[in-house]
Formats: sequence, C-alpha cells, structure tokens
Amino acid sequence: MEFQKNQMIKFKHNSKLLEKAQQAKPELKFEKIVPQRTVEIVPDHEELFGYRVAPLSHRITELNQMAFGKGERVILDLGDHHVGNFQIKIDSVGSPMDASLWLHVVFAELPVELGTIHEDYHGLLSSSWLAEEYLHLDVLPSLLKMPRRYACRYIMLEVLDTSPKWKAVFNEPLFTAESAVSLDQVSKLNSGDSVLDRIDQVSCKTLHDCMQDVFEDGPKRDRRLWLGDLRLQALSNYATFDNQQLVKRCLYLFGGLTTEDGQISANIFTQREPIPDDTFLYDYSLFFVSTLADYFERYHDLTVLKDLFPIAQQQLDLALQLMNQDGQIELNSKWPVFIDWSQEFDKAACAQAVTIYVVKQFLELAKEMNVEVKSYQKILNKLTNFAIEKLYDQQRGLFMSGAEKEFSIASQVWMALAKVLPPAENHALMETTQKELFPISGIATPYMYHHVCAALFETQHSAAALDLIKSYWGSMIEYGADTFWEAFQPENPTFSPYQSMAINSYCHAWSCTPAYLLRKYLKS
Amino acid sequence: MEFQKNQMIKFKHNSKLLEKAQQAKPELKFEKIVPQRTVEIVPDHEELFGYRVAPLSHRITELNQMAFGKGERVILDLGDHHVGNFQIKIDSVGSPMDASLWLHVVFAELPVELGTIHEDYHGLLSSSWLAEEYLHLDVLPSLLKMPRRYACRYIMLEVLDTSPKWKAVFNEPLFTAESAVSLDQVSKLNSGDSVLDRIDQVSCKTLHDCMQDVFEDGPKRDRRLWLGDLRLQALSNYATFDNQQLVKRCLYLFGGLTTEDGQISANIFTQREPIPDDTFLYDYSLFFVSTLADYFERYHDLTVLKDLFPIAQQQLDLALQLMNQDGQIELNSKWPVFIDWSQEFDKAACAQAVTIYVVKQFLELAKEMNVEVKSYQKILNKLTNFAIEKLYDQQRGLFMSGAEKEFSIASQVWMALAKVLPPAENHALMETTQKELFPISGIATPYMYHHVCAALFETQHSAAALDLIKSYWGSMIEYGADTFWEAFQPENPTFSPYQSMAINSYCHAWSCTPAYLLRKYLKS
Repeated sequence: MEFQKNQMIKFKHNSKLLEKAQQAKPELKFEKIVPQRTVEIVPDHEELFGYRVAPLSHRITELNQMAFGKGERVILDLGDHHVGNFQIKIDSVGSPMDASLWLHVVFAELPVELGTIHEDYHGLLSSSWLAEEYLHLDVLPSLLKMPRRYACRYIMLEVLDTSPKWKAVFNEPLFTAESAVSLDQVSKLNSGDSVLDRIDQVSCKTLHDCMQDVFEDGPKRDRRLWLGDLRLQALSNYATFDNQQLVKRCLYLFGGLTTEDGQISANIFTQREPIPDDTFLYDYSLFFVSTLADYFERYHDLTVLKDLFPIAQQQLDLALQLMNQDGQIELNSKWPVFIDWSQEFDKAACAQAVTIYVVKQFLELAKEMNVEVKSYQKILNKLTNFAIEKLYDQQRGLFMSGAEKEFSIASQVWMALAKVLPPAENHALMETTQKELFPISGIATPYMYHHVCAALFETQHSAAALDLIKSYWGSMIEYGADTFWEAFQPENPTFSPYQSMAINSYCHAWSCTPAYLLRKYLKS
Repeated sequence: MEFQKNQMIKFKHNSKLLEKAQQAKPELKFEKIVPQRTVEIVPDHEELFGYRVAPLSHRITELNQMAFGKGERVILDLGDHHVGNFQIKIDSVGSPMDASLWLHVVFAELPVELGTIHEDYHGLLSSSWLAEEYLHLDVLPSLLKMPRRYACRYIMLEVLDTSPKWKAVFNEPLFTAESAVSLDQVSKLNSGDSVLDRIDQVSCKTLHDCMQDVFEDGPKRDRRLWLGDLRLQALSNYATFDNQQLVKRCLYLFGGLTTEDGQISANIFTQREPIPDDTFLYDYSLFFVSTLADYFERYHDLTVLKDLFPIAQQQLDLALQLMNQDGQIELNSKWPVFIDWSQEFDKAACAQAVTIYVVKQFLELAKEMNVEVKSYQKILNKLTNFAIEKLYDQQRGLFMSGAEKEFSIASQVWMALAKVLPPAENHALMETTQKELFPISGIATPYMYHHVCAALFETQHSAAALDLIKSYWGSMIEYGADTFWEAFQPENPTFSPYQSMAINSYCHAWSCTPAYLLRKYLKS
C-alpha cells in the first residue's frame, strides 16, 4: 500500500548529532497581542480573492457590551500576522445557561480563509489544515485557552448555538505571539525607497514568524523543517536576525536523520521527537551541502563543518550516481527535482545546474577539510562541459532543457547562478533571458522568483533585479499581504498548488529573501 | 429582552443550608467499561426510529488491526448505557503524519442519534446538546482523553481527514462510568415474572445512571436537578439504593436557593456553584413539601425537617394565594403546572388535586413540628369541597377540568392520588377511568404514566397497574431501551417534546419508578 511506503525506508538516528541539535534548541520569545478592532469580511468581486475587510464602528473595548446568540459572530483583527496561542474570556447574559455554548473558532491569515470556511473544501491538501475548531463550553464564565498554535491575523468567533434564554459575551481576547527571535534585533533597511523598505519589513516579519523551534516552512500548516526553505531562510537570517544557533540546530537535525543509505530527506517533522519524512527531492538533498557552505562562510564554525562534512559529501556522491558517462544528470522518478511548484517547464537543465552550483560549494568546504578534491574537480568539468556543449545554444545564447529543447527562465537562472559560463557571457545570458523570455510567466513561487532575482544581481543586472523585487513582492503587499506567501503567480494571482486559496500558506519562509537580497546587493 | 428575565429575579442564598448540601455531596464511584464489540448503524424502516444495530464480525481486540482513512468510521458498543468519560489511544500507520488528524466523535444513547448526526438539526432544544465533538490531533501516537462527560452506549469515531499518506489506528478504548451508587447495592426483584424483573433492572440502571453529584433528570443533556424528577427518584431510591445523603443534599439545595419571595425554582444548575433556574412550575414548587414528607417518612430525620419545614410551608402558602373564595386554584401564566409534556388536555383539575395531595402531606409534617394546623385543615376542606362539588360529575363518576369540562385520565389519576373521594368511591373512580378513558392516549411521559400506575395501585387495581407497567415500560425494552426514556407515547412512539428524536433523553430519571412501584405494591 502506498501509505506504508515509509515503513520500508530505514533511517539512521545519529544520537551524537541529534544531541547537538537538541542543545541548540531556542528559548522562544513571547509577546502579548491585543486585537485592535473588530471587522467584517465582505464578499467583493473586485478584491483579488473575492473578499474585503470592513472595519466595524465600535471599539474592541466595547466587545464585552455585545451579546451573541445562535448564528451570530464577531471577527477580531490582530492588526498584523502572528503565530501563537489564543485565549478569551466568555460569559453568558440572560437566564442561567440551560445548554452548552457551541462555538466555532476560525483563524485566518487572509480574509479569503474566513470567507470560504462554510463552503465545501475540495483542495488537494488535508482539510485538517483548515484552522478551525468546534468547541462545547458547558460552564460559563470560563477562560477559553485554545491548546493549539495558530498562524493568523483574523480570528472569527461564531456562536453555533446557545439557547433562546441566554447569549454569549466575549471579553479580553489575547493572542500570545511567539518566535525564536525579536524584530527589534533587526536594523531597518533605510533604502531611501519606501516600497523597498516596506518589502524588507514584510520579509523580516515573514522570517520572524517562521523562526520557531526550527526554521519552519510556514507556520499555518505543516510547520516542518524543509531543506530548500532552510537554505533561503538561513541566508536571510544571516543578514537580519543573525541567529547562529537555529541554523546549526537545523543542520544537525538533517545530518542526524539520514536514511541507512545516507540520503537526507526533503524535510523533518519536529513537533515531538524529530522524524524525517519519506519525501526525497534531488535539489533539496544537495542543498544540505549548500546550506552547510553558507553557514561556514558566515561563522567559520569548524566543529559543525567537521561533524557534517561527511554527510554533505554523501549527498553529493548519491547525486553523482545519477551522472552518466557524458556528464549529464539523469533524474529518476524516485528522486525528483523541485525547482518550483510549477510543472509547466522541463527541469533537467535546472538539475544539471544545481549540481554544478553545489559541487562548487562542496569544493570550497573540501579545501577547508583538507580533503583530496581531484575527482570532484574532474566531475565538475564533466558536468560543466555537458552543460555548455549539449545544453547551451550558442546562437540564441540560452540553455535548453529536455527532449523538447525548452528554453525556460528557470534553466537560464540556475545556469547563471552556477556560473557555468565566464562572467561576460553569464551577464549576456541574463541579458538575453530578459529580452527573450521576460515578462516572466509560469513561475509559481517566491522561491523561484528569488533565484531569478539572485541571478540578475549576480550577473550585474541590479536595476532589473530591483524592479522585479518591487513588482513581484510589491504586488503581494498591494493585495494585502502582511507576510509573504507560499505561492504567487502575478499573471494568475489566484493560483494555488493545492487548488484551494483557503489552504495556501500566506506566511511562507521561502518568500522572505528580499531581506537578504536587498541587504547583500543594494548596499554594495 | 426575554433572555434577561433572570436578572430581574432576585434569589436568596441561605449559606447555612447550602453548606449542609455541600457536606452531603457524594464521592462518585467509578467503573472501567471496555467496549464489547464494533457495530454498524443501518437505516431500517421497520425499526421504531429508522435504524438498526448490526454487529461487525471482528472482535474489539482486533480494532488496532484496522486503519481508518478519510471518511471512514467505526462505532464502539459499550454493551449497555453508561455515564462518564471516554479515552482512546490513537496512532498513525503509513508515512509520517503530514497533516493533523481531524476527528469527529459522536456519543449516542440510541442508534437514531448516530443515524441522524449528519442531517440538519431542527429540534427545539439547543443543538449544543448533540453529543458530538470535532477534534484536531496534531501529534500521534496520543492518548485522547475527552474532557466532557457523556451519556451513551454507542461511540462513533469518524475520521474526517488524515492525508493520503497515512491512516489512523485506534486502540484501547476505555469508558470510565460514574455514579454516586453501585448496582451491587440493590437486591434483585425476583418477582417470578421475567418481564417485570427486566423492567425492574432497567429501572434501577436508569436511576443509577442519573444519581451523580445530585439526582439529575437525565445525564445526556442538562444534568439538572429538577424537583418533579427528584420526588420520584427519591421514592425509587428509598426502595433500592437507599442513599439518604443524596436526597438530603438535594433538599438542602432547593431550600437554600429560593427567590427573595421564598419561591422554589423548578430546577437548579449544579455544575459549578449551584444556580437556581428562572423557571417556576406550580406542581414542582409544591413537590418540595411532598419530597420532604417522603424523606421524613423514610428516615424520621428531625434535623432536616426543622431546617426545611419553613420553606415547605412557604411553598404551600404561595400556592394557596392562587385559591379563590370557592376553594378553586386559579393558575396564571407566570406559574404554570407541568403534569405531563402533553399539551392535549386541560390541567386545572390536576392542579387542584396536586394541591390537595400536598396539603395532606403538609399536615403530617406540621403535626411532627407541633405547628397549629387548623387554618390549613380549613383550606383542605375548601379545596376538597370545590373538587367534589364543582369538578366531580356524579353521574359519570369522573372529574372534569376546565371550561370545556374535559374528562382526562390525568384529572382522575391526580384526584385518586389525592384521595378526594372516600376509598370505595376512589376505587370506583379508577374503575370508571379504565372503562371509559382507557386505552390511554395523549400522555407523553413515563412521569405521568407513573402516576396512572400509582393511582391504580392505590385504589386496589393492582392487576391493571401491573399490566400497564408491563405494556408501557415493556414496550420501551422491546424497542431496545437499555434505560428508560424521557418521553414515550405508545400510540405515537416517535413523539418528541422537542420535535427531534436525536435530542430526546433516553435515560431519564422520572421513568425509573417501576423499581419503586413493584417493590411497594407487588410484595404487599
């Protein structure tokens, strides 16, 4: 049976490495957030996702003057996105409570999640991720302390039933937000451009809300540690909160939980004892090398390097088993490459480029470790030669991918980042990419947009990179983002990888990289 | 506003009496119940309520061999009705849990409650009484301990969602049943008639499950202490469990919580600090006298009598304010009389008879207290004279009620119980009642059926009383009752006072009186 897949994959548990992960576990910081106002969510076809937020006239301090009977509801607005726990005092007015209170509580990052909560859900992900609870309160007054953690800006309290003889009254709502870091730690960008400054703020908030016990991909749903996300979060973290311990912890978690063959899972569940997932992604496994290299570059931490270098090498060796005699990476279905949520482009050239990108970082680490690198140098040449000779179309000045010889933006971007071509040609590659392949379409994630921007910056197209940051991340802000989203396709803004806007994550770490890109490239 | 009614009624809190109620609070007894089997609930139009229980072939010990994905469910059968708390171990099989478990748990006394749980609810009582919970479990394995108390025989575990990669597994379901008493304390009836013996057993079980911190009316819903129910529960208790403390506690609760005018509420909420309801019923208030008299007759407890006699007297005095110059009780809408859930008959004659019944018990108590009773004796005569002269139709040998001069069974029964007529004529009254008004129709509760049977026994119609017990309570058993019901109308068996079979209470204390009637009248 498909669902038993995992029980056939055996994992190692390296207790020495896992102990080091445990030691680096952060103490979370807590902040008390009082909702600022009550609002209504109104259907509005002119809004991106079909709903508008309409403030109500009374103040939040008047909440306890209102009584809620069967079918009545109130929506609290925290004023910003937060991650944490919620509590509220509930009392009754009227006759003594001659029935339980039957309460529906819904937490939403965006209005669309509240607007659609009473509709049937047909998304591809589990409906258990819809952030709603149904509760019976037998005795009032009570202090309702919700036991689960939520990611939200809006909280809807909907009275499903009382009795005709009494109503419910809410008072003292309180959200306790949590994170491993504090926004006070980050100095402002002060770019001189208010749009970029705002993008940077939202980026930092996004990263902040995803920095919990581990770098979570998104606090709304899985709360998992994904390697592809970790790599970008770590880069943004170095430029902002600079929390060394949390990156170290996550590296040790991945290093301590490989399969018996030494392969690193795409992600780890960390809510109780850490459990590696049975999902493996080619690029994500390789990014263990990359994340370790970035970490070492930032902190020169030889202890971590020595502990984890063999595991990094193992990822590369496993990947290189897919290289054929011509130097081509031949992917198979057991170990797909991610690159982006879009399935609209061929990803073979990307896989080739990512491998080159990672081998180069590996060679830097190997030098630090005094490891013999000749064989990897040879491999790098073979990989690069294949890319230039078989994938590069000299006439068009672009890389092609797959049997259909597709020229996708993603292929050019990853080849540019891997610096397969010499600097001048690399610059020209991204020049041609803009001329021939822009405006961008068919890319579904801020994750891939990050790599486009990074490639533009790395090839001295800073103005274009800044324009792209302003238009792409700026659009999300215009659409009402308090934190940046998991998926966003400007030409198709209601795209969901799961076929449901209600299940998308609207605070997703891999979208936080403007904080990194702007700090790295704007100031230089 | 209607729902603020209570805030205008001021209650006294007699702390001395309430302290005595607190001291008599029982220590509950707990019993561990392991479900005996798994079953299906199958729609079946030949069954009374439209559903049939179909046992599944596997054993309960095989439960942990089964895996439940989205939309799959299992129903556990406790084998009998119980009141208490539920726990179960839940684990996952397959890949690591990449989504929360979204679980629906439904508790049911009868199959109809499970069969209709997915239908829209349109009953008159709050939907918050439907015994269902929706739960998210973020981490498995977990021991799920449901925090609320339930009354049930069947427990449905319905997996609303997992993810395609894993399923839920249930193991070690455990129900911890609770009661103030143990069934072991009651000796068997051994009547020689297996139907009566079974009716007695089910009566004792019904009373047992309603004897908690107080005598509850029914453990499924309100769990309230109602005076009308208490009176009958106490009588059955004297004949079976003989728990003096619990009756004493309930008498002190009512006595300690009158209105400022001295009136006793129809019921008290006891889940936290006791709160009297703002519902007042004429007969229920008077039954404080009756319940105190029955208690004194059983235990000769002078302390309780001295503490509570003034409050008993107050109830009578308040009732007698409604007596006009002719000796007629004139009800008003602020203080209606209950008698039965049926609204199909006029209740004025019943109110007259209940008053006479209670005055007679009051006179007994007054003698014990050495209180001057002449005025009450005079009132009794006036009440009785009015009944005989104005309500009794000598030709028909029956009492009539109301402007329409109705001859209802309830009027005859209460006049017989009040012994308005001399013994021979009282015997004839119930003889005529049977001849002219039977077969019974239009009576909706075991509560009123109890009074019919009591009147038959008291007027030496024992055989008819036994036949009625066997046919009425026996029918409920044939329909699948593990405990006796709140409402049952044999000629209209799907009657619900709330227009929903799902919200009826199927373990209701006022239906437990065969245990009392059979022990009192069968053995004499």
